[in-house]
Amino acid sequence: MSTKPSVGKHVVIEDDVTFGNNVVIGHNTVILKGTRIGNNVEIGANCVIGIIPGGNTRMRQQTIQSHSLLIGDHIKIGNMVSIYLNTTIAENVFIGDHASIRENVTIGKGTVIGRNAIVELNTRIGENCTIQTLSYITGDTILEDDVFIGPCVSMANDKYMGAKEYVLKGPHLKKGVKVGNNATILPAVTIGADTIVGGGSVVTKDIGEHLVVAGVPARKLR
Amino acid sequence: MSTKPSVGKHVVIEDDVTFGNNVVIGHNTVILKGTRIGNNVEIGANCVIGIIPGGNTRMRQQTIQSHSLLIGDHIKIGNMVSIYLNTTIAENVFIGDHASIRENVTIGKGTVIGRNAIVELNTRIGENCTIQTLSYITGDTILEDDVFIGPCVSMANDKYMGAKEYVLKGPHLKKGVKVGNNATILPAVTIGADTIVGGGSVVTKDIGEHLVVAGVPARKLR
Amino acid sequence: MSTKPSVGKHVVIEDDVTFGNNVVIGHNTVILKGTRIGNNVEIGANCVIGIIPGGNTRMRQQTIQSHSLLIGDHIKIGNMVSIYLNTTIAENVFIGDHASIRENVTIGKGTVIGRNAIVELNTRIGENCTIQTLSYITGDTILEDDVFIGPCVSMANDKYMGAKEYVLKGPHLKKGVKVGNNATILPAVTIGADTIVGGGSVVTKDIGEHLVVAGVPARKLR
Repeated sequence: MSTKPSVGKHVVIEDDVTFGNNVVIGHNTVILKGTRIGNNVEIGANCVIGIIPGGNTRMRQQTIQSHSLLIGDHIKIGNMVSIYLNTTIAENVFIGDHASIRENVTIGKGTVIGRNAIVELNTRIGENCTIQTLSYITGDTILEDDVFIGPCVSMANDKYMGAKEYVLKGPHLKKGVKVGNNATILPAVTIGADTIVGGGSVVTKDIGEHLVVAGVPARKLR
Repeated sequence: MSTKPSVGKHVVIEDDVTFGNNVVIGHNTVILKGTRIGNNVEIGANCVIGIIPGGNTRMRQQTIQSHSLLIGDHIKIGNMVSIYLNTTIAENVFIGDHASIRENVTIGKGTVIGRNAIVELNTRIGENCTIQTLSYITGDTILEDDVFIGPCVSMANDKYMGAKEYVLKGPHLKKGVKVGNNATILPAVTIGADTIVGGGSVVTKDIGEHLVVAGVPARKLR
Repeated sequence: MSTKPSVGKHVVIEDDVTFGNNVVIGHNTVILKGTRIGNNVEIGANCVIGIIPGGNTRMRQQTIQSHSLLIGDHIKIGNMVSIYLNTTIAENVFIGDHASIRENVTIGKGTVIGRNAIVELNTRIGENCTIQTLSYITGDTILEDDVFIGPCVSMANDKYMGAKEYVLKGPHLKKGVKVGNNATILPAVTIGADTIVGGGSVVTKDIGEHLVVAGVPARKLR
């Protein structure tokens, strides 16, 4: 079921990698074992795809349930992108240059991951979301469908900043939430459906649905 | 008119690339077709230069007027940098490691683009500007000459965050504006000549010239 | 004293590089001259290690005292990482993907440098620190032991933003300081031991020890 991709120069493809039809891989890109690529996929140059998670002794150890990275159909991946194993990327996703996506992540169909955006481990991103450039989607986060994250948005998942044992929990943004550029979202915050968060705001606690909030800390505007 | 550059190992140079005199290219760098490199240019390792724009069906489609990337004389480009076609980089520019520059951009002479800084499409950057590390210059933006952008500054160009049809418009920073680190600048804002914006400020509306502003939202200090 | 590392495909190792025992180097990685690698070190794919500093005529010129990059034992370095010469990385350090570390830096043992984090020149980072993803540690900065920097934290070291001659000075964070995500720290600020800075805060002046501060500007909470 694996066909031969069209590859650039100095491309490295390890064992146990499969390709659908019409796959194009840019120069100097590395595809590591366990990567499963669908049909009509284009991957840029100098990427590293299918990375095995790891860390030092001070970092949490991750259990990997599968050893596959699933890249669906009609996907475009930019240049110098890094993607880990045990992640699933649905059809029609776009991933910009220098972006990085960790293990145990799912990205729904039609979603755009901007340039230099980072998606951490154990995170679920819905369909038709937009994550703009340089935004940081922390671990243990849920973004439902149609969420819009402007550029340089920051999220966190560790309320105690490493000071005590704690189950890490990122934000939960419900369907249609829009977050302006460089907003800060604190750990474990829930933002209700269709709420809009202004650029530069700091969201410190849960916010209801269909609201517009802004400021430090973010408060209802109307 | 094209001379032979000094190249590292595993460098990929596609057809239709031209070089001036005294060009040095680091290991594993990829130079794609349409790239025009001037004299006395140094490009680091593992870069991808001359990228063709693209996206998925949810992203705006860009019309490319030319298919050349013009890199002038006396330019130094770091490592793991990505630069798109249809962009012009004037003499004496420095571009730091991991930086990324999109299509339809002009960068004036003597300007410094910091490490991991990102310049989006359709943006004009003047002469002798400084864009520091991790700053985000959004699309459809104008930075006049002598603008200083501190580290981690964020800009946006989409007032409605994808909610409706809208002509995207980034900020317009006039001559000599200085912006402190991690400031947030909202879409379509104009900042007058020589005005200083404090670090961490959120600029929500137009600001006059020769002022010092700070805070959330940014207000005049003196 | 130099043994042969286990290398991937298209790896470039220049002259004057030494390796301890049990070193693994990923595909397409470039190790430049002057790099000294200890025992039990793993380096990912598409990295550039041992970079010579440089800039254009508008940037400060750096005097390099040594021409070695020292990478200690039991270190793991991710993918697409850039590290400069004249820097010392102690044992058990972890450096995430897309991170970048400049010249004249020391990193103490057990410290974690997150993905896409940037450490600028002339900076001292202590032992068992955590610098999370996309954080920016500016030049001329001191982080003592056990400092925790959340994601997307920004620091600056140039009070006059290039407007006048000035000895650049970054923040000094004492032992055990914790900084929340996307906080902004202005140049030359000292933060006392064990103080906690809330996410999204802007620290504009010195802060004592054992405090909790938050807001814009950051004020004592208790």
